Amino acid sequence: MSSTSNRPLTLHPDRLFSPEPIQRDIARELHAEIAELPLLCPHGHTDPRWFADNEPFENAADLLITPDHYLVRMLYSQGVPLEALGIAPRDVDAAGGPGEVVASPRDVWRTFAEHFHLFRGTPSGFWMNHVLSDVFGIDTRLTRETADANYDRIAECLTDDAFRPRALLDRFGIEVVATTDGALSDLAHHQRLAAEGFAGRVIPTFRPDSVVDPDHEVYADHVQRLGEITGRDTTRWDDYLAALFDRRKLAISLGATATDHGHPSAYTASVDAATAQRLLDGALAGTLDASGKETLRGQVLVEMAAMSIEDGLVMQLHPGSHRNHNRPLYERFGRDIGADIPGPIDYVDGLHALLNRFGNDPGFRMVAFTLDETTFSRELAPLAGHYPALYLGPPWWFLDSVEGMLRFRRAVTETAGFANTTGFVDDTRAFLSIPARHDVARRVDCRYLAELVSDHRLELDEAHEIAHELAVGLPRRVFNLRPPEA
Amino acid sequence: MSSTSNRPLTLHPDRLFSPEPIQRDIARELHAEIAELPLLCPHGHTDPRWFADNEPFENAADLLITPDHYLVRMLYSQGVPLEALGIAPRDVDAAGGPGEVVASPRDVWRTFAEHFHLFRGTPSGFWMNHVLSDVFGIDTRLTRETADANYDRIAECLTDDAFRPRALLDRFGIEVVATTDGALSDLAHHQRLAAEGFAGRVIPTFRPDSVVDPDHEVYADHVQRLGEITGRDTTRWDDYLAALFDRRKLAISLGATATDHGHPSAYTASVDAATAQRLLDGALAGTLDASGKETLRGQVLVEMAAMSIEDGLVMQLHPGSHRNHNRPLYERFGRDIGADIPGPIDYVDGLHALLNRFGNDPGFRMVAFTLDETTFSRELAPLAGHYPALYLGPPWWFLDSVEGMLRFRRAVTETAGFANTTGFVDDTRAFLSIPARHDVARRVDCRYLAELVSDHRLELDEAHEIAHELAVGLPRRVFNLRPPEA
Amino acid sequence: MSSTSNRPLTLHPDRLFSPEPIQRDIARELHAEIAELPLLCPHGHTDPRWFADNEPFENAADLLITPDHYLVRMLYSQGVPLEALGIAPRDVDAAGGPGEVVASPRDVWRTFAEHFHLFRGTPSGFWMNHVLSDVFGIDTRLTRETADANYDRIAECLTDDAFRPRALLDRFGIEVVATTDGALSDLAHHQRLAAEGFAGRVIPTFRPDSVVDPDHEVYADHVQRLGEITGRDTTRWDDYLAALFDRRKLAISLGATATDHGHPSAYTASVDAATAQRLLDGALAGTLDASGKETLRGQVLVEMAAMSIEDGLVMQLHPGSHRNHNRPLYERFGRDIGADIPGPIDYVDGLHALLNRFGNDPGFRMVAFTLDETTFSRELAPLAGHYPALYLGPPWWFLDSVEGMLRFRRAVTETAGFANTTGFVDDTRAFLSIPARHDVARRVDCRYLAELVSDHRLELDEAHEIAHELAVGLPRRVFNLRPPEA
Repeated sequence: MSSTSNRPLTLHPDRLFSPEPIQRDIARELHAEIAELPLLCPHGHTDPRWFADNEPFENAADLLITPDHYLVRMLYSQGVPLEALGIAPRDVDAAGGPGEVVASPRDVWRTFAEHFHLFRGTPSGFWMNHVLSDVFGIDTRLTRETADANYDRIAECLTDDAFRPRALLDRFGIEVVATTDGALSDLAHHQRLAAEGFAGRVIPTFRPDSVVDPDHEVYADHVQRLGEITGRDTTRWDDYLAALFDRRKLAISLGATATDHGHPSAYTASVDAATAQRLLDGALAGTLDASGKETLRGQVLVEMAAMSIEDGLVMQLHPGSHRNHNRPLYERFGRDIGADIPGPIDYVDGLHALLNRFGNDPGFRMVAFTLDETTFSRELAPLAGHYPALYLGPPWWFLDSVEGMLRFRRAVTETAGFANTTGFVDDTRAFLSIPARHDVARRVDCRYLAELVSDHRLELDEAHEIAHELAVGLPRRVFNLRPPEA
Repeated sequence: MSSTSNRPLTLHPDRLFSPEPIQRDIARELHAEIAELPLLCPHGHTDPRWFADNEPFENAADLLITPDHYLVRMLYSQGVPLEALGIAPRDVDAAGGPGEVVASPRDVWRTFAEHFHLFRGTPSGFWMNHVLSDVFGIDTRLTRETADANYDRIAECLTDDAFRPRALLDRFGIEVVATTDGALSDLAHHQRLAAEGFAGRVIPTFRPDSVVDPDHEVYADHVQRLGEITGRDTTRWDDYLAALFDRRKLAISLGATATDHGHPSAYTASVDAATAQRLLDGALAGTLDASGKETLRGQVLVEMAAMSIEDGLVMQLHPGSHRNHNRPLYERFGRDIGADIPGPIDYVDGLHALLNRFGNDPGFRMVAFTLDETTFSRELAPLAGHYPALYLGPPWWFLDSVEGMLRFRRAVTETAGFANTTGFVDDTRAFLSIPARHDVARRVDCRYLAELVSDHRLELDEAHEIAHELAVGLPRRVFNLRPPEA
Repeated sequence: MSSTSNRPLTLHPDRLFSPEPIQRDIARELHAEIAELPLLCPHGHTDPRWFADNEPFENAADLLITPDHYLVRMLYSQGVPLEALGIAPRDVDAAGGPGEVVASPRDVWRTFAEHFHLFRGTPSGFWMNHVLSDVFGIDTRLTRETADANYDRIAECLTDDAFRPRALLDRFGIEVVATTDGALSDLAHHQRLAAEGFAGRVIPTFRPDSVVDPDHEVYADHVQRLGEITGRDTTRWDDYLAALFDRRKLAISLGATATDHGHPSAYTASVDAATAQRLLDGALAGTLDASGKETLRGQVLVEMAAMSIEDGLVMQLHPGSHRNHNRPLYERFGRDIGADIPGPIDYVDGLHALLNRFGNDPGFRMVAFTLDETTFSRELAPLAGHYPALYLGPPWWFLDSVEGMLRFRRAVTETAGFANTTGFVDDTRAFLSIPARHDVARRVDCRYLAELVSDHRLELDEAHEIAHELAVGLPRRVFNLRPPEA
């Protein structure tokens, strides 16, 4: 597939609505009311440094291509080397810099432009067109021929103060954005942001994976540093938990309302403290077997739920990805280069221990995500439609897409309704795509609601209320976001 | 989400049809021909006492809310205590009555009305609106504001003889309705019904779970009572089977045409009698491990299939629900309060023993249901599209919904056709919702057929024949229902 | 369901397009451009003897019914004995011929016609109507009443030279068709075809299952014969592999561009040569357990991938069918009578060994198929959207259908795009249905593209390019098919 000429780039006002006139008109009407509502971003991966420093972004490639594993994976799958996308092998990093090995930002952009046709029909392509058109005012489609002109146009924009991070927060209508922060982080950027009046607008999320997962390459080191930072003996189970609780407190002091947990499975455990101590000992000594690691992770998750009841943090669980599936590539380039592959997840047995202990507790709230859509109707909707504590996050990662969202709503709503879901979270490190992602979610929800209304499964006035709930009401309440002061 | 005013409640004549004019018109035409056909209900959970006693129903809450686990689970998931829905904890029952602990029927109704918005987009909400509008003639939507008026309206109706159970059977056009009856039941209500001319219209279904599943809390007690009732030594494998066969005969004498089996999995076994005796011994002694229980259940299922060949009862299998997932709630309130959660099911290996023994036997007929829709296209349609004995029941429980039905037809038809499915069964204990559920099934089937016709995958005259088959032809033949005498 | 009269048979020009006018018009426009493109058939099961001998086909039943397991399985599921479909039990074969046991071709055809209503809404029915109408010019639907006339009409056609295999190749516009050939085959028909100028048009595919799968009934015998044919000691691991490589060379010399592997799972292994030798020893001695067989199959698959890097053959993997599920029927009639049932497949762990070794190798190309559509979005699209070597074959077997194709595109495209899929392969032994199957695939792809365009997810000019790619560009490139000489 090749692209051969300069063709106009426009965002159609009816995009993602059904072309069927009755449904389209309902979707239009619903969308018109929610399109301009503020964006709530309680789960994401933007860099807090951007907002703390408020420096201009460097260039189109470093901003939009190189760090985006959705883009990198597709290009790699069609034969583009990672170096051509600006990603340096580990050993080059060790030698002090990429040197001649990786492509320049402009060449990265050219390579991307040349292969942009690969993203036809994908959310990544749709988001990118939104960013180019809406954020940068570009009006020709990205091709090999337009690559340089578009690169220069973006470069020019980025020198403008209106494109600095804080200005974009305002322009995008982002009321609150959560970052993702490890247990060891001193949250220095958030400290500075708080000092400058951004408390409650840019907030941290407590993500302790590196001190929870014995399979993480830095686990033992990070657990030790956790002890040093908190002044606790993290080789002792009780103190280890207390140290985690300390770090949650720090995050809360800077606005955090949630924790986030990336686990290989949804398994939760119920073992006594002596057993947990033995597991922790083994994990730190590097002698724990796979089953022991699974139990330890599952037990820490349950302990975290107990802490949530004490400190009020909402627990998010993102299970089921086989990380670094491509070992040779991992060894050369490290993590997060697009080689994480989902597998089946068992929520029914997996969450049993946790839900039986805390699922009926009005002080506990858990948001579950999935990459295994077979669990939408079979497990997640039935669980969320029963346990008071459990909410369903929106379709995640590979499922954060038009079809993924439609399948999610169609599979989940009939059993769990809308009120047991959280509304949209954008889950992105691609800051400039945040409006595009919320735009997709709002349009697809309106499309789905229009289906229900046109089928006479829902009244139009009800659809209006639900559309508003999905856009702002539910995320605000489920994630305990403070409404802006009047 | 709150509801704020009295808004009209109507049932749109085109509800559940596609809004696309070509498809809508075809669906209308098909539906017009089958809408008034009699309702065949060969699988359900209504109480035979209702029809035997023919007493008026008590009130809206006891009739429509408290016993409906679809409603109870959703309300509980959003923080409504079970007591507020009229469900008494076990210990209160033990003390002799709910006393002050549970809400009054009117308060239950008010609580339901206040939370009715939770059911937007769900089948429960859709069925309830149908019942309110069509059965009780209510013309305002149920909200906090209209709760009392609607409660009173229903109360008034219930005093009318036209709302007694037998009158409703006639009004609903129910040609035959099957109840669900344990192996120990003396079927006294059915005896009375038969004596009063209802033989063949209200019929029992033989459901022996409590004497088949060693995990059932009353298993050993019920197996012993089975022996007492039949005068057989049910600790002996042969006699145990003979006792089951005796009880099937009783059900048949009162019109039963089917058995029904709720199993944790679809596993079927093939062990010899000596092994079976050892398993039965262990089960009765309470010493059998999980694997032994699974084998025993699987072996009894195969024995039941052998009995079906002898006595002609159609075997229904409902596998794959993790019952009482919420242990704390189960301990307080007991079974059937909405905490049964599906899991994955393996039909291919599970049914292998049974199908290899009886799947080619023209005298055997098995109807399989599922809560795991991944098996629609992967396992169930291929199995039913090959084995003469196997039929697919309609989408069950959480999948008994507009989207569930559409996914079922779209996934199953291309491999198994229509003739290997059973048509609709309503599977409900909510008597008043039976017409609503058949209405949904017939409309959705017409919608699906309209898709095929408008795509030119099916001719219109063929669609007419199939619509009729799905509504009455298939259920009548597959479940061996006698047509009414001319 | 019965069919009662002579009703016209026509193929609607808009069949399989959405009836919604905007989408229909886009689909029409896209389809008009690709409808007449040549048919590329790089994976199929036609008999090379047909093309080598170029003799007339015998009769409608032997040509269209008896060998088609899609048709046989459905008819059998509704009570039609296999003998009535022309299939002889094994013992009758042993006795030297079917004799009086199996039906005559005309009776087979009558039985089929009488039950043709069973195929309403199925791809088999749709393909058959296409064959009857488009290949044979029949203009009345097939029913009991029209059976004889249609049989005679087909018989008359078959005497016409225009209906000989090679003439049909031309008439159908088949540019290249691959057959499926065992490791022992001397490819005599292909030799003759090459000698007569069909090199590159009718090509073999190397399918070594019978010498790779220790569970195959002829395994030990075929491995021994493989040794005899190649002059190698196939009891020695190295020589066994060398013998396989020899046979690949023969296939390549006659135009093969691919291998094909039918495995019970997607498991691939990584064991050393000494272990492999022990496994081979056990397999040949018949002492290998299930786990050993799985490892051996998985290891041979990896060795075959290594050979592919050397000789350039594309590797196709078709995993996950439980063959001969119906043992009694298998014992009476043998293989391939419609009793193969899919089960769950694990690609993420299964393919790990193979992809880690060769998944990044630009010289390797693997095409994965599935019968488990839960893997579309969860495993296959993420894997193919990352590994350069991996491509996704079109929906296979039970999923080779309108709905199956739509679900495939909707589930796969957003993660893997179009370029990581292969375009259509027809996978059929029913030669006359090849145009029908490509027609369905092209129409459904145009329908899907029309959805994207009408949703403004894709521009119309992009859709045109993709439609062309899916029809001819991708299969030609992925399967290394030579374009016809200009």
